Amino acid sequence: MATEIERKFLVNPRSGSRQNGIRKSTFMEQFYLARDPWVRVRIAGDNAKLTIKGPGNLVRAEFEYDIPVEDAEAMRPLGKGTIVKTRHLVPYGDHLWEVDQFHGSLDGLWLAEIELKTADEHFELPDWAGREVTEDGRYANAYLVEHGIPKETRS
Amino acid sequence: MATEIERKFLVNPRSGSRQNGIRKSTFMEQFYLARDPWVRVRIAGDNAKLTIKGPGNLVRAEFEYDIPVEDAEAMRPLGKGTIVKTRHLVPYGDHLWEVDQFHGSLDGLWLAEIELKTADEHFELPDWAGREVTEDGRYANAYLVEHGIPKETRS
Repeated sequence: MATEIERKFLVNPRSGSRQNGIRKSTFMEQFYLARDPWVRVRIAGDNAKLTIKGPGNLVRAEFEYDIPVEDAEAMRPLGKGTIVKTRHLVPYGDHLWEVDQFHGSLDGLWLAEIELKTADEHFELPDWAGREVTEDGRYANAYLVEHGIPKETRS
Repeated sequence: MATEIERKFLVNPRSGSRQNGIRKSTFMEQFYLARDPWVRVRIAGDNAKLTIKGPGNLVRAEFEYDIPVEDAEAMRPLGKGTIVKTRHLVPYGDHLWEVDQFHGSLDGLWLAEIELKTADEHFELPDWAGREVTEDGRYANAYLVEHGIPKETRS
């Protein structure tokens, strides 16, 4: 088990610099087998993971296991709420940001996440980072896929 | 992914022979993280498994992964419907039966399962095996833990 400490930010849509310094971009598909707790399947290339997440936003228990891609694909009919996105890894200061560019029904949405070692760890905020939405449940992936992009963020 | 083909029987409570020829007995605890699909955690000694089961009774998709026991124990607060039972492995004819002796709130209940390679595979029925309950949802572990032992089986 790991404890995940993660902060999440909107990405300013007009900022061109969000794409500067991308180290790696990975296309991924994910869906949910369950909620409360979240049981998520994610397929990225020839890699698949099964993840269980406990309650909470900023800090929560997380259990993650590699599974065969064939298993993950065979689980599709058991899943709900498919999300497809490209995850860009963007180094900034001492941290590596995960900047998600959503596709499909969430096309146009970008969200940036940073994983921290402690809840009060200091980090530098890139100029493309907008409002923090760590505690805003509307920006949880599982909520987004059911309710779409929140009005305030639609361009 | 595996396809699980399993038939399930009541165990005659008056039959002394059900305990004859037990090869191995293992105490196990299991609980559910989700239903539809079932996501089950099982701890048996120093071994833990995370299992996802698709819909169906006789034949269903099953995905099973070994996980660290510490993970399984840390998942307890996320789980529902804890069952404790002793699983007796009993060879009979060409097959190995799993005979479950339930404890706790299901104390007194015994159920026997046999795993088959095909849905119509022949097997010998031990004299201690009672009515088949493969398609009787009341004898699914997850149903039992919520509703208790069905009236017909209470002694």
